[in-house]
Amino acid sequence: MAGSTTGVLFVVTTWGESHGGGVGAVVDGCPPGLQLDVAAIQRQLDRRRPGQSHLVSQRKETDVVTILSGLAPDGRTLGTPISMTVPNTDARPAAYEDLDDLYRPSHADYTYDAKYGLRARSGGGRASARETVGRVAAGAIARQVLSERFGVQIVGWVDSVADILVPHGAVDEDTVDEAAVDAHATRCPHPDSAEQMEEAILEARDDGDTVGGVVRCVARGVPVGWGEPVFDKLEADLAKAALSLPASKGFTVGSGFAGTMLRGSEHNDAFVPGPHGPVTRTNHSGGIQGGISNGMPIRIAVAFKPVATIFSEQDTVNRAGEAAVIKPRGRHDACVLPRAVPMVEAMVALVLLDHALRQAARG
Amino acid sequence: MAGSTTGVLFVVTTWGESHGGGVGAVVDGCPPGLQLDVAAIQRQLDRRRPGQSHLVSQRKETDVVTILSGLAPDGRTLGTPISMTVPNTDARPAAYEDLDDLYRPSHADYTYDAKYGLRARSGGGRASARETVGRVAAGAIARQVLSERFGVQIVGWVDSVADILVPHGAVDEDTVDEAAVDAHATRCPHPDSAEQMEEAILEARDDGDTVGGVVRCVARGVPVGWGEPVFDKLEADLAKAALSLPASKGFTVGSGFAGTMLRGSEHNDAFVPGPHGPVTRTNHSGGIQGGISNGMPIRIAVAFKPVATIFSEQDTVNRAGEAAVIKPRGRHDACVLPRAVPMVEAMVALVLLDHALRQAARG
Amino acid sequence: MAGSTTGVLFVVTTWGESHGGGVGAVVDGCPPGLQLDVAAIQRQLDRRRPGQSHLVSQRKETDVVTILSGLAPDGRTLGTPISMTVPNTDARPAAYEDLDDLYRPSHADYTYDAKYGLRARSGGGRASARETVGRVAAGAIARQVLSERFGVQIVGWVDSVADILVPHGAVDEDTVDEAAVDAHATRCPHPDSAEQMEEAILEARDDGDTVGGVVRCVARGVPVGWGEPVFDKLEADLAKAALSLPASKGFTVGSGFAGTMLRGSEHNDAFVPGPHGPVTRTNHSGGIQGGISNGMPIRIAVAFKPVATIFSEQDTVNRAGEAAVIKPRGRHDACVLPRAVPMVEAMVALVLLDHALRQAARG
Amino acid sequence: MAGSTTGVLFVVTTWGESHGGGVGAVVDGCPPGLQLDVAAIQRQLDRRRPGQSHLVSQRKETDVVTILSGLAPDGRTLGTPISMTVPNTDARPAAYEDLDDLYRPSHADYTYDAKYGLRARSGGGRASARETVGRVAAGAIARQVLSERFGVQIVGWVDSVADILVPHGAVDEDTVDEAAVDAHATRCPHPDSAEQMEEAILEARDDGDTVGGVVRCVARGVPVGWGEPVFDKLEADLAKAALSLPASKGFTVGSGFAGTMLRGSEHNDAFVPGPHGPVTRTNHSGGIQGGISNGMPIRIAVAFKPVATIFSEQDTVNRAGEAAVIKPRGRHDACVLPRAVPMVEAMVALVLLDHALRQAARG
Repeated sequence: MAGSTTGVLFVVTTWGESHGGGVGAVVDGCPPGLQLDVAAIQRQLDRRRPGQSHLVSQRKETDVVTILSGLAPDGRTLGTPISMTVPNTDARPAAYEDLDDLYRPSHADYTYDAKYGLRARSGGGRASARETVGRVAAGAIARQVLSERFGVQIVGWVDSVADILVPHGAVDEDTVDEAAVDAHATRCPHPDSAEQMEEAILEARDDGDTVGGVVRCVARGVPVGWGEPVFDKLEADLAKAALSLPASKGFTVGSGFAGTMLRGSEHNDAFVPGPHGPVTRTNHSGGIQGGISNGMPIRIAVAFKPVATIFSEQDTVNRAGEAAVIKPRGRHDACVLPRAVPMVEAMVALVLLDHALRQAARG
Repeated sequence: MAGSTTGVLFVVTTWGESHGGGVGAVVDGCPPGLQLDVAAIQRQLDRRRPGQSHLVSQRKETDVVTILSGLAPDGRTLGTPISMTVPNTDARPAAYEDLDDLYRPSHADYTYDAKYGLRARSGGGRASARETVGRVAAGAIARQVLSERFGVQIVGWVDSVADILVPHGAVDEDTVDEAAVDAHATRCPHPDSAEQMEEAILEARDDGDTVGGVVRCVARGVPVGWGEPVFDKLEADLAKAALSLPASKGFTVGSGFAGTMLRGSEHNDAFVPGPHGPVTRTNHSGGIQGGISNGMPIRIAVAFKPVATIFSEQDTVNRAGEAAVIKPRGRHDACVLPRAVPMVEAMVALVLLDHALRQAARG
Repeated sequence: MAGSTTGVLFVVTTWGESHGGGVGAVVDGCPPGLQLDVAAIQRQLDRRRPGQSHLVSQRKETDVVTILSGLAPDGRTLGTPISMTVPNTDARPAAYEDLDDLYRPSHADYTYDAKYGLRARSGGGRASARETVGRVAAGAIARQVLSERFGVQIVGWVDSVADILVPHGAVDEDTVDEAAVDAHATRCPHPDSAEQMEEAILEARDDGDTVGGVVRCVARGVPVGWGEPVFDKLEADLAKAALSLPASKGFTVGSGFAGTMLRGSEHNDAFVPGPHGPVTRTNHSGGIQGGISNGMPIRIAVAFKPVATIFSEQDTVNRAGEAAVIKPRGRHDACVLPRAVPMVEAMVALVLLDHALRQAARG
Repeated sequence: MAGSTTGVLFVVTTWGESHGGGVGAVVDGCPPGLQLDVAAIQRQLDRRRPGQSHLVSQRKETDVVTILSGLAPDGRTLGTPISMTVPNTDARPAAYEDLDDLYRPSHADYTYDAKYGLRARSGGGRASARETVGRVAAGAIARQVLSERFGVQIVGWVDSVADILVPHGAVDEDTVDEAAVDAHATRCPHPDSAEQMEEAILEARDDGDTVGGVVRCVARGVPVGWGEPVFDKLEADLAKAALSLPASKGFTVGSGFAGTMLRGSEHNDAFVPGPHGPVTRTNHSGGIQGGISNGMPIRIAVAFKPVATIFSEQDTVNRAGEAAVIKPRGRHDACVLPRAVPMVEAMVALVLLDHALRQAARG
């Protein structure tokens, strides 16, 4: 596989650079007969797009999705590939022209040049966050299938920005929903933290600098039995999905790194009888045991580094390998976290639905 | 894929439970003409096996590998599948018999039962750490190819056990080697930390309890250009590989979660001219930018939870869903970390070689 | 995989029904730096489209391809996914409306309904020959890479229509080219046979009936060493590619079924020294031995059944399972063979390039 | 994929050369809870092995299968990988020693050398028919699942040897069974033809020569709905499976090449109401329409060339590229057809079960 396709049974292929005719995705393997809610796809794209609030990049991408195939005239899925495109409307290659010869630090310019021998000008090509348009659109479809066929709900939120962390327990993972998350432009459902995060983001922007943070995501309603026991453990595929997002640097499931500080007697999740089978008293496992969902909420976190495009002088080299100084211009996010929430949710949805179908095959 | 096979061009399939005739792996896609060092495979298995030191489980698995195919009479690889088996010699199903009806907390008993409708008795089946025998053997082959054909060196070590962490900078990632790691039974190359870790492990064992920790791993000599830009980013495949290991709960590359605390101006890795092309002054990127290796050392960390088998009473439920109390017996690790080092190294090797071959195809 | 994606390293995904916004393909894994000849892609689409001659369906599909991604401004491939779309311009769902409830004999109406529970109205959805637009476009790209990077030439032609067969040896497989093939609307490079085929096609059409035939295809210049020895033998992937085309019923490589009549002493291809290594005196092997190309021309044939849409009354059943009579109307091919030539060539190109890249990875 | 693994959900990996420790297969994705009939696996291996009758090679391979994993103590499948091995017992590398330097005509010696730079001595390595041991064992498992879970029966037989063909209609495809097939050592269920075939085989052997032929295979009881509509059409995967067998040169489904002689009005399979849904009056489609099974028997044929090892002098070249003469010795089949029957059945079973599981996922 050349890396732009993912999934075993729910198979998603994305295409498109930040320049060119647009970006998009082809979703193959969607169960037939689903009344597709196109507005719901658009809503997730709107949560991802630049310009949605004062906190994110002011690029004017409207990101309107068009569906070219895979639907019956009445809007139900046919079970055939669903092709979605979003045109590029605000590409400004000129803004990047004088950077063409310089490798932006902590960007993919150098690695692309070395790998391919050439690269897309302007804005990072496939390494651009614009590539995630197709993922979010595909994820929105997966989400609908998960919700309607399996009763699964996926909710992500910003858990930290720079050194501002939502206090432990301040967000109830069993009830937090998209309305609470989207109540604030930071997508942090804890109001006090959200305000501080906003300040941190605006302060960094004023400094021509950027900040990172952590997105948490929970999937509620996942039945017991999804996931494969060895290489394709559910958490393994979630980790891959998370680390495939631009700027992500870390992933945890359940107790994560903090769990390494506990003893087994503290960490183990005791089983107790539940109304529909065993449940666990705690959920350090993060809803997955031995690679397979155990019916408890799936809990993950994803770390995003500070955005690499900063507006101050930095040392770098040019294509000839000579020392140089770079100072980017343009319109960029000072913090990607608010926009990363729908991206993480989308990737979780893609992984869960793929495993749902794989388990169905075992029936 | 049913989950026991991984890789696109260097394809590894593992098989085997902790009971039954043995465990093993089939490695397909190994480059031909490599003089295979079987002793080196055995050495990695010895680093993985129980009973290797006073710190790990005293089960008597000798884990001697036999190679059944894929080699010419002179020991060179033919390019055809290399089948390796390791017989089970110390399976003691009786030790588990009275547990058959109880779901061990934070084990995979319940999820396997729910997924498959039945499960292997005794020791966890495919969820057992014994499954990793095949991975370590396959990884040892990958390692040889990486070393001989590409000059890549992979070194892992124990970076923390419980709350004992190697001090920042105390292990030099540019020079640490297997001899330094294996100098202490903990596989921590920092002697002071190693001693404290040993104490912590022995103390937990005396309490019938267990501890977790973190393995770090570095790959040096990886050339620029390995990795695919979107779903199969190099760090994404590394994350999947890491989270596919039993008991792993988290993964980071480069700056990881700590990097979310930095500003972009601190986090960005400035390029400077190097003898063979650009290098970076810092390595927060962990050797990967935009999913593609940049020629700097690849740096990852993997979190392992405390071992789930503890020797005290715990609440649980039985197969009928009724409340019960369980108190395991047997021979188990109080800490999996020393044995996890060769597992992590193996998974890193599998991912790197697969991407090396994928990039070669682009030639 | 859900079946709309093919290839290991040169990965093609097609999408689109005969109704809806269009059809297309995403090509991932194309080597970077290729100056893409878009006109050459269009030319192959023109060879595939209806309405190109008096012998094929008179539907007015212009089939103009648009490339949305994967190219640098100067037209070179970036190594990233190439997304191509062709809008649907002549969909006439009304023409099919009264057939919606009836299963057309030897079409996919019944099987789609059974598989998916619903199906695209009008023209067969993904089972329509219109789906091959994406394949032909993708194949045209593969062909350019094969030609420029490896010196491979692929030529297909119509070898039989109904009971009219090109006489044995009348087409020189070492020299036949596209100009000779396209000199006649039948795409048979043997003029006498071509004329008889034309008559047979027109006669069938006058009768409201249809005819089938055989396409032969040769790939010259394939170096020794492409193909994998077991499940992915080169001829195996070619067979799959051929049988994945609509209406195909058989495949042969080299001597095919006729070879079963020969004795080993007649069939074996003696090696003789050649200027660049061994060559074979005969080529019953069809350029492949043990699943791997041997440097001789690759020779295949593909059987296509007579088109299923005929304009006479036929017994069938309706969706309710009741006996019924159907008599299609509309504009259909009386013989698909002339249009099948670029389809076969495209599939051969996709398989060969994928294996070329797989072998390069072995380097 | 490196080519020794096949299947999407029922995933089979084979390994082993004709020399070395043995051959085998790993079957991943087998549904759990199946009471595995190991004797039935052995029976299919016995139908494949040399020495089973006076008509085939007299090599003394006993081919006893051992199952190392994937079974519960009571013999039920666990849903985990089933590892099967068959030791090599009659390898006689000495018999091949003087051939090491010569490329046997129509064997894979030259192509392996060119591809890998080295190759297994003696007997063809992975190109040897011995590789099919693993396939037949895996296929025997698939067959049991197909039979017990889906009611599918697969029966193959020898339809022609050299120019002796079973008369049209002489074998009733709706009722022919393994007992009838195995009643004669040729595996031709038509007694008159069987006797003539036997004579032809013995005559060829007496001449130091070999003959080829055709295997037909039918799968009865396949429900409507298996198969994917585009690249993974059911017939496409069957074609690939067939052409991946050693010595196969052609594949047909349903009417095959003969169907190209019919007009659409003759070829179309009229639907008529049946007891459990529509059935077709004829079955030129071979049980598949639009790539998807239609509930009628699936009918395929596979052409096998005459065995390449003949006992007369042939021109060839040596590794240095010089002209030479070769005259093989050893123990070889004069006709592979009787042994090819279980191979074809196995490959059909692998494809059908994989698609059965893929369709189940669509549930």
